[in-house]
Amino acid sequence: MTPTGHSLIAGQTVIGGGKTTFGYNPATNEQLDPVYSLLTEDQLRTATAAAAEAYASFSTLDPEAHAGFLEAVADNIEAIGEELINRASQETGLPTARLQGERARTTGQLRLFATVVRTGDFRGVRIDPAIPDRTPLPRADIRQRQIPLGPVAVFGASNFPFAFSTAGGDTASALAAGCPVVFKAHNAHPGTGELVGHAVVKAVKDFGLHPGVFSLVYGPGASIGQALVADPAIKAVGFTGSQSAGVALMRTAAARPEPIPVYAEMSSLNPVFVFDGALKGDVDALAQQYVTSVTASSGQLCTSPGLLFAPEGEAGDKLAAAVARAVSACAGQTMLTEGIAGSWNAGTEALGSATGVDLIGKGLEGETENAPAPAIFGTQVKDFVTNEVLHEEIFGAASLVIRYTSIQDLIEAISRLEGQLTASLQLTEEDYRTAAPLIPALEQKVGRIIINGWPTGVEVGHAMVHGGPFPATSDSRTTSVGTLAINRFLRPVAYQNIPQELLPEALQDANPWQLNRRIDGEVVPAAEKAEAGG
Amino acid sequence: MTPTGHSLIAGQTVIGGGKTTFGYNPATNEQLDPVYSLLTEDQLRTATAAAAEAYASFSTLDPEAHAGFLEAVADNIEAIGEELINRASQETGLPTARLQGERARTTGQLRLFATVVRTGDFRGVRIDPAIPDRTPLPRADIRQRQIPLGPVAVFGASNFPFAFSTAGGDTASALAAGCPVVFKAHNAHPGTGELVGHAVVKAVKDFGLHPGVFSLVYGPGASIGQALVADPAIKAVGFTGSQSAGVALMRTAAARPEPIPVYAEMSSLNPVFVFDGALKGDVDALAQQYVTSVTASSGQLCTSPGLLFAPEGEAGDKLAAAVARAVSACAGQTMLTEGIAGSWNAGTEALGSATGVDLIGKGLEGETENAPAPAIFGTQVKDFVTNEVLHEEIFGAASLVIRYTSIQDLIEAISRLEGQLTASLQLTEEDYRTAAPLIPALEQKVGRIIINGWPTGVEVGHAMVHGGPFPATSDSRTTSVGTLAINRFLRPVAYQNIPQELLPEALQDANPWQLNRRIDGEVVPAAEKAEAGG
Repeated sequence: MTPTGHSLIAGQTVIGGGKTTFGYNPATNEQLDPVYSLLTEDQLRTATAAAAEAYASFSTLDPEAHAGFLEAVADNIEAIGEELINRASQETGLPTARLQGERARTTGQLRLFATVVRTGDFRGVRIDPAIPDRTPLPRADIRQRQIPLGPVAVFGASNFPFAFSTAGGDTASALAAGCPVVFKAHNAHPGTGELVGHAVVKAVKDFGLHPGVFSLVYGPGASIGQALVADPAIKAVGFTGSQSAGVALMRTAAARPEPIPVYAEMSSLNPVFVFDGALKGDVDALAQQYVTSVTASSGQLCTSPGLLFAPEGEAGDKLAAAVARAVSACAGQTMLTEGIAGSWNAGTEALGSATGVDLIGKGLEGETENAPAPAIFGTQVKDFVTNEVLHEEIFGAASLVIRYTSIQDLIEAISRLEGQLTASLQLTEEDYRTAAPLIPALEQKVGRIIINGWPTGVEVGHAMVHGGPFPATSDSRTTSVGTLAINRFLRPVAYQNIPQELLPEALQDANPWQLNRRIDGEVVPAAEKAEAGG
Repeated sequence: MTPTGHSLIAGQTVIGGGKTTFGYNPATNEQLDPVYSLLTEDQLRTATAAAAEAYASFSTLDPEAHAGFLEAVADNIEAIGEELINRASQETGLPTARLQGERARTTGQLRLFATVVRTGDFRGVRIDPAIPDRTPLPRADIRQRQIPLGPVAVFGASNFPFAFSTAGGDTASALAAGCPVVFKAHNAHPGTGELVGHAVVKAVKDFGLHPGVFSLVYGPGASIGQALVADPAIKAVGFTGSQSAGVALMRTAAARPEPIPVYAEMSSLNPVFVFDGALKGDVDALAQQYVTSVTASSGQLCTSPGLLFAPEGEAGDKLAAAVARAVSACAGQTMLTEGIAGSWNAGTEALGSATGVDLIGKGLEGETENAPAPAIFGTQVKDFVTNEVLHEEIFGAASLVIRYTSIQDLIEAISRLEGQLTASLQLTEEDYRTAAPLIPALEQKVGRIIINGWPTGVEVGHAMVHGGPFPATSDSRTTSVGTLAINRFLRPVAYQNIPQELLPEALQDANPWQLNRRIDGEVVPAAEKAEAGG
């Protein structure tokens, strides 16, 4: 299908009453059709009102229909076919193979959440049966479940047009929780957003759900975002983007008459620590892996390694030289937007001219517009710990190699780090003893610790944490990737002495949803539960 | 032992360098010995610094010692004996039987958390084993656990000198999570706070824990509270008290360079809805139960029923008359402080003089100071939904009977309610159909729904939710009572491709802590897990 250029509110195409915008091809800086009409705040409220209306039926949907709906969204995204990849490639400059992989991740994610909806452990069923003859006072039957928070506002990210966009992780986990979603499309890939939006809307229709379950809205970036977060119908926010935008949303959410949670994934330097043992192996391969991780998707990944700590001395010098060689062969790729490329230029200029920072190596300019040459800089721990400029994320293919002389250097550097999504260690068995004290120190700073791997390439599974202390995210208690992400959109409610007829399905003795339950504190699998609640 | 009048910082008695204060006996308005010395902010920082130091060892304590420590706190509290009850009675005016029950609840709570620490499900172990031959890319071994957030600031409540104070629910759940605690004593019961503080300190010593695991601090109420929440060493806050104080702490926490979560339990009207069927039974008994719930502990309970919705007409009139009779026999009991009694007087005066509000019945003045006569007022839904004065919590023995004519009245009234801790329904089987639509409406407003029971008397178990949407609490995703409370003080961390030697115990294949684990998304009990992680 061809993008229409309009918002999708509760199943209807709505022509925005505000200004207009276009997508752009960042490889050529050319405008892409169609023109996109932007909503007014009044129009936006029709989307949030529809979401609020949809809550009652969607939040109580039976698990089989609920899971089937998520699978249908995945099927419908795949059914768009190459048109979707082509449009995304035009709008983002990202290579086709990367976009195909990202689409597979996005549909795989929806299907994984469907399995979680069927199992239903996130419903958190706890039953403390009545003890009528307890002294001095009897105990009433008390049951607990997690209910969906309500309509969720999701903000698409520029750098993942599928996986952190219309039907990406935040949308998928909110829908899996049973929350209607109002999705604010990213204006850097409006056509991609709309194509996926139609896929979601079709699944909503085919499953006979309330149309307010999903809306896709286009609006003037900051102002419509603030209006959406301030809207009383919205009960939680998912966001991936810059720290300044994320913090602005956090402030708005906290200042509401009813404050709401904001799950913002914002910025991360993703430090890598290289130990002596790792430098006794294939240093060229190590350097190449690093440069590949730095330059993948033009470095426009939340987990791109922005810092690499390498020891002073000969082995570290060899690594730096190998890094310089590896990056010199690396051509710039089109960045997502002209603005992002401009910020990258400003950031690398500031870093390169900072005291104690040298250029280690530079790649080649790309052949398209907005494809600057990747750059790797070098410095020492003493400069890193004293200069805040060296702690600023440069979104794009740039990284800083920091030379250290002792494990104390590393402990000191870690203590100065802000919260991060990841930290990685390159080591061999001989380094275990040296590296061991770093692990508890890093736990305080990051959401994921990796050994002998690179932080890019975030696995979508049950154990993944894509999160971390502020400012990596707004809420370190959560993850925005993996099945634990669903828990962000739930809250517990207790039911005391409620007759079976008035209990929600999840809590009924008959356990019609076949849920695992915690009975008097012990997990009781669904299969064993026939009378457990009674 | 005799209270010393000083703070306990990391196991040491510290004489505060600031002003001084006293406890008061609210039954006589007399000052109680000893004088309490208040800390300066510099002194406060020694407590938070010690807590930060204690984190490394306390957060990794093996479960058996960890559980034993919590049990020792309970034992030590009981070992204080009647001296503790006497002091608490003097400082709070609460009756001995109530205080004995509260002490049992507090020690029972600590022992319940000890069982949870031994089982360890809150550690949230998830293992996604490696799939080296997966295509197109292999999957790395990824493991997840929940780690303690860090030092927690806990604020004691005036109305529960044991259960929401020094070693109450917030402290117990933070300690169970593995977080050191800096406890800000409530100045309304300083001696009680100190006696329990020594019980905690003794357990810390006897178990050879880092002394920074627990400090008890006295300071000038608002300013030291703000300083504590602003302290960079503090990573989360537990609070029970007024909405104004709770919101002030939320603001401070959100404005920090690193924002932190605040779990504030603040205010609640706890509406009760009476249906026709319930009025065909023993109306006098119903009225008596209501009045008992309103006047228990002088109404100074978070879950005291501040609103009762009763139908218009003869049956409702009979209930109102029975309520008037029941309350008229009810004598005022000493309130916690002169200030609280003063606020109660002001609140009931404002309510009594509001348009459309009548006095239904009044009890007797108590014989002590600060023991006003319980009061029950009456109004109609139309006045309730239009006058905000009728939505304000009156902390103490007062309640408002609201007469309704239809289920639409109730739906309308519920939609106007702010977030509440509880809602209760009095009904019989004939009312099920009428009451059913209220349940999803109430789920959006409260943390606990009760049928044919009263909201006071909060059970400490696995299924309890003592929480609810703002302003009942600052964070509807949590509970401050029951074992789920521990989850407030945790955050997930993922470990990717980490060799066994460098993994924390909770995640090792050998499973030395015998934890239930989620392997590839399926719960695997500890007993079955021998090689499951491998």
